[in-house]
Amino acid sequence: MSQESGVPGGDLRATGMSLRHDREWDYELDRIVDEVEERDAETVGLQFPEGLKRRGPGVVDDLRDRLPDGVRVMISGQPCYGACDLDTYLMRRSDLFVHFGHSPMKESDAILYVPLFSNVDVVPIMERSLAELAAPEDDPDVGLVTTAQHMNKFEAMRTWLEQRGYEVHTRRGDERLTHEGQVLGCNYASAAVDADQVLYVGGGKFHPLGLAMEHPEKDVVIADPVNNTVEVADTETFMKQRYAAVHRAMDADSFGVVFCTKIGQGRWDQATEIVAENDDAYLITMDEVTPDRLRNFDVDAFVNTGCPRITTDDGPQFHKPMLTPGEYRIATGERDLADLEFDTFHGTW
Amino acid sequence: MSQESGVPGGDLRATGMSLRHDREWDYELDRIVDEVEERDAETVGLQFPEGLKRRGPGVVDDLRDRLPDGVRVMISGQPCYGACDLDTYLMRRSDLFVHFGHSPMKESDAILYVPLFSNVDVVPIMERSLAELAAPEDDPDVGLVTTAQHMNKFEAMRTWLEQRGYEVHTRRGDERLTHEGQVLGCNYASAAVDADQVLYVGGGKFHPLGLAMEHPEKDVVIADPVNNTVEVADTETFMKQRYAAVHRAMDADSFGVVFCTKIGQGRWDQATEIVAENDDAYLITMDEVTPDRLRNFDVDAFVNTGCPRITTDDGPQFHKPMLTPGEYRIATGERDLADLEFDTFHGTW
Repeated sequence: MSQESGVPGGDLRATGMSLRHDREWDYELDRIVDEVEERDAETVGLQFPEGLKRRGPGVVDDLRDRLPDGVRVMISGQPCYGACDLDTYLMRRSDLFVHFGHSPMKESDAILYVPLFSNVDVVPIMERSLAELAAPEDDPDVGLVTTAQHMNKFEAMRTWLEQRGYEVHTRRGDERLTHEGQVLGCNYASAAVDADQVLYVGGGKFHPLGLAMEHPEKDVVIADPVNNTVEVADTETFMKQRYAAVHRAMDADSFGVVFCTKIGQGRWDQATEIVAENDDAYLITMDEVTPDRLRNFDVDAFVNTGCPRITTDDGPQFHKPMLTPGEYRIATGERDLADLEFDTFHGTW
Repeated sequence: MSQESGVPGGDLRATGMSLRHDREWDYELDRIVDEVEERDAETVGLQFPEGLKRRGPGVVDDLRDRLPDGVRVMISGQPCYGACDLDTYLMRRSDLFVHFGHSPMKESDAILYVPLFSNVDVVPIMERSLAELAAPEDDPDVGLVTTAQHMNKFEAMRTWLEQRGYEVHTRRGDERLTHEGQVLGCNYASAAVDADQVLYVGGGKFHPLGLAMEHPEKDVVIADPVNNTVEVADTETFMKQRYAAVHRAMDADSFGVVFCTKIGQGRWDQATEIVAENDDAYLITMDEVTPDRLRNFDVDAFVNTGCPRITTDDGPQFHKPMLTPGEYRIATGERDLADLEFDTFHGTW
C-alpha cells in the first residue's frame, strides 16, 4: 500500500507514523489454535475493529493453515467499536469466538480476547509533549492515561515521566476498564486523579477529547505517536454543539428515547425512567444508532442512552437534536444548564 | 405535511396519489389490545416498515390510551424491509410482538401480523394500463400480481380484467408467499403462469423490475396507483450492471461471501458451499449488508447470499463487484454467461 494516501501532517521521520502501513500485529494465532484444540471447536468466529477488518481474510488464511481441516472460520461483518460491541449472533453460533483489539469489558469463557498491542515507540512523542506539560518544578503532578492498544507501554511511560521529575498519578477506574490507566471512549474514571494536568499517550483525538469533556477542570495534553502530533485538547467545538442541541431541544414536545441493544451499550433503567415520566416520550430499540435509521421517526428530539460518543461525535448529523440523558433533564427544565456534563458509561452487562 | 415535497410526476387528480399524504391505515388496534389482554402481556414490541416508522409514536399514543397502565410499548428502530426482516431482539423481549405492513412469511404465536392494506382505488390506473397490454382479441392471457399492500383488491382486479375479456392467470407461488398473486422483492413464483404478459398493480417499480428480471420472456406492465403511472418494465439498466459486475469479478482472486443473519434472509448452504470449494473465499456474517460495512474488507469481490435486491439494486454502490451466488459461478467459469439469471429467494426459515 502506498504511503501517499491518507497520511496526516507532521514529521514522519522521528516516530510511529512511518510504521503506519507496515506495522505488524500479533494475532496470537498459537493461542487461538490451542483454544480450538482444547474445546474441540468446529466453528471459530472472528471479530475485528473497523480499522483491522481488512486484515481479516489474511488472519483466516493463517488460521486455516494451522487448524485441522473441517474447522470453519467466520468473520463478523458487523461494525465493531469496542468490547461493548460484541457480535453476539456470531458468538452464539461459534464454538470459539475471538474478539480482537479491545481489552475485556467482562471476562467470559465464550470469548477469547486478543488485545493487539501497538508496536509504535512512544518515547519520541512524549519527549515533544514536555513542551505542553507544566514543568515539574511548577507542577510535578501529572495524570497518565492511554488506550488498550498502547497498554503494553504503560509502565515505560510512567517511568519515563518519573525520571523527568514528575509525580505520576494513575488509577484503574471502574469495572468497565481492564487496566490501570486505561481510558475508553465512554469512560474516563482512570483520569479522576489528583493532578491538574493529564497526559494522554495514544492514537487519535477521540479518547482525549472525551477525557477533556469529562474533566473540564484539567489540562489534557495529547501525545499521539501514531499521527506524530502533540496538542492540548480543545473541546470548544464539541461544547458549543452540546449547548446548541440542548437549546434546540427545549422547544421539543416529543422525544424518541433510544435504548441500544448492543450487549455493552444498554442503559435500560435510564431509558425506561424517561419514558415512564413523559407521555410524549417513546422507547425506540436498536443496535446501530445512526442518522439514517432515526430519520424516519417523526419526533422533535432524541435521547440516546446507548454509546455517549454517538451523541457527542455524531450528534450534529441527526435530523433532530440528539441528547444525552443528562441533557434531556436540562432541556425539560428539571436541571440547570450549568449542570451540563459529559455523558459516561459505567459497569458492564 | 406539504404536498410540494417529493411528489413524483403524473396526473394526480384521478387516482391514489392525491391520497398520498392523508391516507389512513388500519392498525387494527382492537386486535392488538385483545391480544395483549389474552396474553396478559406487559411488554409490546412494534415493528414498522421504513415508510411507516414516522407513524410509530402516534400508534403508541393510541395503544397507550387503550391499554392498561403499566403495559410498556416499544418501537423497533431497526431497518425493516419485509417479513424476512423481523427484529428478533425485540421479539424475544416482548410478550407481544406486532409486525406491521407485511404478510406473514411464516406464522408464529410469537408474532401478530397487521397487514396494512392500502385504500387506494386501483381501477383508474388499470383503465390506463389497457393501452400497454395486448388487447384481449390478440392475446387474452394475462398474469396478474400485486403486493401484500394491495392484496385486499386482488379479486376486484381479477374481475375487472375478466370483464374486459381477459383470461387471468394467477398462482400462489411458494411457501414464502402468503397469498395467491402476491409477489415479494425476492420471489416471483406467483408470476410463473401460462401468459406472455403480466400486469403488476401496485406501488413503485421495485417489485415489477424484479419480476421482469426473473421472467425476462414476459412483458411486464406496471400499473402504479400510488404514483399514478403506467409503464412497461425496462430492465436494461439493471442487466447491464449485472453483466458489468460479473465481468469485473472474473479477475477476482479473493471473495467475501456474505451470510446474512436476518431471520428470513439466510442461505447458509449456498454460502458455506462456496467457502468450502474456494480457498480464497471468506465467510462474512452480518445483518444489514451495506457498502459502508463491507468497505473495510480487502477482497476482490463479494458474493451476497442474503437479500437478492441488495445485489441488484445497491450493487453499484459497493466498492468491489457484488455478485449473486449464480453470478459467482459464472465469474469463476463454472457456468456460462448465458446462464445469468435473477437471484430469487425461496422457503422461509
